[in-house]
Amino acid sequence: MRYELYYWPSIPGRGEFVRLALEEAGADYVDVARGSGKGLGVPALMELLQGQGVEHPPYAPPFLKAGKLLIGQTANILLYLGEQHGLAPATAAGRLWANQLQLTIADFVDETHDTHHPIGNGLYYEDQKPEAKRRSAEYLKARAPKYLGYFERVLERNKPGRFLVGQKLSYPDLSVFQLVEGLGYAFPRAMKGLAKKHPLVMALRDRVAARPRLKAYLASDRRLPFNEHGLFRHYPELDAD
Amino acid sequence: MRYELYYWPSIPGRGEFVRLALEEAGADYVDVARGSGKGLGVPALMELLQGQGVEHPPYAPPFLKAGKLLIGQTANILLYLGEQHGLAPATAAGRLWANQLQLTIADFVDETHDTHHPIGNGLYYEDQKPEAKRRSAEYLKARAPKYLGYFERVLERNKPGRFLVGQKLSYPDLSVFQLVEGLGYAFPRAMKGLAKKHPLVMALRDRVAARPRLKAYLASDRRLPFNEHGLFRHYPELDAD
Repeated sequence: MRYELYYWPSIPGRGEFVRLALEEAGADYVDVARGSGKGLGVPALMELLQGQGVEHPPYAPPFLKAGKLLIGQTANILLYLGEQHGLAPATAAGRLWANQLQLTIADFVDETHDTHHPIGNGLYYEDQKPEAKRRSAEYLKARAPKYLGYFERVLERNKPGRFLVGQKLSYPDLSVFQLVEGLGYAFPRAMKGLAKKHPLVMALRDRVAARPRLKAYLASDRRLPFNEHGLFRHYPELDAD
Repeated sequence: MRYELYYWPSIPGRGEFVRLALEEAGADYVDVARGSGKGLGVPALMELLQGQGVEHPPYAPPFLKAGKLLIGQTANILLYLGEQHGLAPATAAGRLWANQLQLTIADFVDETHDTHHPIGNGLYYEDQKPEAKRRSAEYLKARAPKYLGYFERVLERNKPGRFLVGQKLSYPDLSVFQLVEGLGYAFPRAMKGLAKKHPLVMALRDRVAARPRLKAYLASDRRLPFNEHGLFRHYPELDAD
């Protein structure tokens, strides 16, 4: 089966968490909105997002078509892919734990997004700059350290701490990789200090980046660069001094 | 098995979404932090949240102890309870759809929380009032209508539209009930207009409130009232004019 991934074509955003799982799994997929021609491109995405005939309409991208299934919400897509491709534990308890970690990553991602959009998604960054500066300072002081400290602790307790869940890579590991990459892009000055304090998280990032399939993917043009339209944005004025 | 629910004792907050599922299921549970004595109260919650010996530490309440399992993240707890108590479809596809809806509800809940805390959780509301006013205006204009419109559409497409998923009540229905209650408490003026535009959502709210077990629960002192320390807060200055 060829999966169809639907996400905005110009940003890594939340779609990237799904893409990393598809790439690590070596799954066959088409990145629909990045293509052109019949059934591809942004119109194909909009058709599923807004079409009248969609039985289970997604609220927002990313969503994944898997045969007859149309699955939305990043963590939900990963729950599905994790089970299909051995990117999650085989036990019910292990899967719940992986999902729990993924939902905590999702919260962290939401808070990171809101550093540049504390007032609303419908306004430009330029229209909420003073608020963004205040929120980012709070975020870098209190929130990012709390979340990173949490994942550091999870790795510590999962001796020998090579992965978040059990002794094998699972999809939350891929998402932590993406988070660390995004934070390094958005807040390079703050991340210098944070990286030193969270060595296990940083080692996990390196371990994920070195996996053969991911290494090839990251070097390919399927990997989209971060930019100032996405989730992780580099606005130097929001970074630590 | 007697479940142990762990949540802050003085607010309904995110714990209430779990409590509604436990009550509708008629499950045996103890609301740990609201009790007192050995093994109860806030210290028991803090022990699992911060204790060194916890193998799968939760990031934040609510969390649920179910035998040997310790499950965190609201949507993850509901995924588990839904499966255990027939509060979710029996098919894998149906469960993914219920989880997808629940995650969209969680996003809506997060954005609602941030109307009174747009800068940071670590600051008082009083320290972020101008920003809260701006965010709330955006939220009431753009975000709440978008989310409510989405759930209205989901109900419309699920003919005869009595429930969100299939032809039976499932846990996202309970959460939509709580959302509507919370919005009515926090933004009574804005909700008057929004309620008229979303009749299926409002009818779902009524249908849930009328279920025998929930009706008894809502009239009991197990049901905590909303207040200005929780998720849904009534600050008249943030409501519509």
